[in-house]
Amino acid sequence: MPPFDVPEGDPFGPHNLPYGVFSLPGSDDRRVGVRLGDHVLDAGAAAAALGSPYVSLLARPSLNPLLAAGRTAWSDVRRALTGWVTVPSHREIIEPLFHPLSAVTLHLPFEVADYVDFYASENHARNVGRMFRPDAADSLTPNWKHLPIGYHGRSGTVVVSGTDVVRPSGQRKAASDPAPVFGPSVRLDIEAEVGFVVGAPSRRGEPVALADFREHVFGLCLLNDWSARDIQAWEYVPLGPFLGKSFATSVSAWITPLDALESALVTPPERTHPLLPYLDDTDDEPGGYDLRISVAVNGHVVSEPPFSTMYWTAAQQLAHMTVNGASLRTGDLYGSGTVSGPSEHERGSLLELTWNGRDALELPDGKRTFLEDGDVVTLTAWAPGPDGVRVGLGEVTGRVVPSASRPGSHPAPH
Amino acid sequence: MPPFDVPEGDPFGPHNLPYGVFSLPGSDDRRVGVRLGDHVLDAGAAAAALGSPYVSLLARPSLNPLLAAGRTAWSDVRRALTGWVTVPSHREIIEPLFHPLSAVTLHLPFEVADYVDFYASENHARNVGRMFRPDAADSLTPNWKHLPIGYHGRSGTVVVSGTDVVRPSGQRKAASDPAPVFGPSVRLDIEAEVGFVVGAPSRRGEPVALADFREHVFGLCLLNDWSARDIQAWEYVPLGPFLGKSFATSVSAWITPLDALESALVTPPERTHPLLPYLDDTDDEPGGYDLRISVAVNGHVVSEPPFSTMYWTAAQQLAHMTVNGASLRTGDLYGSGTVSGPSEHERGSLLELTWNGRDALELPDGKRTFLEDGDVVTLTAWAPGPDGVRVGLGEVTGRVVPSASRPGSHPAPH
Repeated sequence: MPPFDVPEGDPFGPHNLPYGVFSLPGSDDRRVGVRLGDHVLDAGAAAAALGSPYVSLLARPSLNPLLAAGRTAWSDVRRALTGWVTVPSHREIIEPLFHPLSAVTLHLPFEVADYVDFYASENHARNVGRMFRPDAADSLTPNWKHLPIGYHGRSGTVVVSGTDVVRPSGQRKAASDPAPVFGPSVRLDIEAEVGFVVGAPSRRGEPVALADFREHVFGLCLLNDWSARDIQAWEYVPLGPFLGKSFATSVSAWITPLDALESALVTPPERTHPLLPYLDDTDDEPGGYDLRISVAVNGHVVSEPPFSTMYWTAAQQLAHMTVNGASLRTGDLYGSGTVSGPSEHERGSLLELTWNGRDALELPDGKRTFLEDGDVVTLTAWAPGPDGVRVGLGEVTGRVVPSASRPGSHPAPH
Repeated sequence: MPPFDVPEGDPFGPHNLPYGVFSLPGSDDRRVGVRLGDHVLDAGAAAAALGSPYVSLLARPSLNPLLAAGRTAWSDVRRALTGWVTVPSHREIIEPLFHPLSAVTLHLPFEVADYVDFYASENHARNVGRMFRPDAADSLTPNWKHLPIGYHGRSGTVVVSGTDVVRPSGQRKAASDPAPVFGPSVRLDIEAEVGFVVGAPSRRGEPVALADFREHVFGLCLLNDWSARDIQAWEYVPLGPFLGKSFATSVSAWITPLDALESALVTPPERTHPLLPYLDDTDDEPGGYDLRISVAVNGHVVSEPPFSTMYWTAAQQLAHMTVNGASLRTGDLYGSGTVSGPSEHERGSLLELTWNGRDALELPDGKRTFLEDGDVVTLTAWAPGPDGVRVGLGEVTGRVVPSASRPGSHPAPH
């Protein structure tokens, strides 16, 4: 089906137009692409062919120049692109610049500057609290309802969907172990999240207000924050997660611009605690996004986390992240934290789905508590779009491959 | 004093030769520079003038190409440079390429990829434990002697020595506060650290062994990990430090190559717990560095932390950071953690020096518990060099400037 004739109702129709970076077989030449149906448009070539001034933003090997250009440029480029792929008079020029998705290689679409991960689902935080602090009066820590808890992750190991994930090795210590042992993680997990991509930078010392969210954030993508629960449990007190997370974080190859998600805006859950002014969105436009996520292991759907249930919004996270004067750079990425809804089938991690390994999931190919070598995890999602059409998000998928054995490593004793 | 005639015994003599990046007045043209005495050599211009093949590594606006070139190139370039600044026949060509330090602007010498901060001083960790967990049986957490605890920080706010630091605002909550309050930090602190700069990258999934430390790490510098103790205390459970640290981290303008510090290698403190093989340096060459640090507030020395007392070495930190398969990139920076010696005058933070604000320091300009606006903090250090000559480290200095007031901010109530 030629791209101009993408079927009505296709979640990657001209109402969507996410951005990525692709190369053609046998070439290292990376180009900005825009997805339409099952095709990718060579956006720089299209700009050049049509004499568009946006060629300087689009004929590039990464999204960074477009990201850095700011909100007005983002909207203008999107308007131009919409015309290129829908106005019939462009058809003859544009159509040869599409490539079937199956024929291209997709790359990490931008250079990740800093990577921050939040912890913004109340359901997830309460599940974790109930599992690991069963005697606490409140399953949330005292700060949880006052600020979006976050921490910095490793930006150098953010990888694009489709990249294999090597099972990490590290130290762990069960309560019954007299000393820590070393070996491949035996509790490898996923975290289904949404990632937000910063385009326009900010200056050090100048906080970004809630209302300026759309001036700085270009778009979003699905994100899998792979987690080794055994490594994390032993290392994380007192300075937080480190090696339990830093081995890999997968993001979709497609960044969906916020402009494509206007119909998906929703009011976040009711705030149960008064918020300090810099976080108070009570009188603002809705700041949540209604994204319906699906988590599949080896093609079998194990969970459907609803992003609309997140307590903290991306705008609040951005305001919090910068309130101390920390500056933003083009390419900063921040994850929402694991998305978990209130019901059992809506939990965004195996940790919660199996209640810390107690209740195995029954998959067609056997039981699972945590991930086995060879398992393929795939996150997909869609959002309500204009006129009842869905907006598809790019999938994020990854296969677990065995830990490389090497001199000095100890076999795992359990 | 012309640079060829730098006085014998100068800590920045030809035995040192640290690298930085400078520009001349009225120019944005950044160049790699090498410090000799009170002068900086335009290294790229020198390479060009002498027809050296290293012009491609040195005639660049940052150290990144040199960092990426790897250990053999680092040693070769250093050997060449040593010749350029010491062999009398080069004098006529080289001498005009020196600029007085006082006439140049120094810049952040490399593009920081990921920034990790460790917690490797046993004295520091025990002091913190005694202050904040006074009832604990052990002032160290159970993992402390088994792995070098670390976490990722914000690389986008790493700044070069001399950059002003804006006092951060944020949430804090004293035990007596019914709810968190917002305002400029009232417990702004320093952490005297040493930063290690990664040059040669590694591949994802492939740990870097202890023995390969020098193949990947180019050099070191002083580092001040500015910390807002009040913000940190309220936010850091359960995911670690975030806004309490992310507003600024200062590094020296000069990176001292490991090759200049051969005479400073020392055996680290005796290990009290058996180490897993990937961390076990018992039979290795000494992995500690004897760096004598000095911390001054407004020119008054308040502490002299000895780096030789660090329990975990930089090689162990690198092996740990990558043992899960996390890859290294050129420009990765990792901090040692606050350097504190066993005695009171050797503590690397005001938190410890004032015992959490209980015992004010007496400075010539008044008492200090934490930092006041206008305070200038300067870290300096030296190491034993060849033939009893000192190797100077570049200083790291920064002045605290007031928090910018802005709409929506609440005045600090205490």
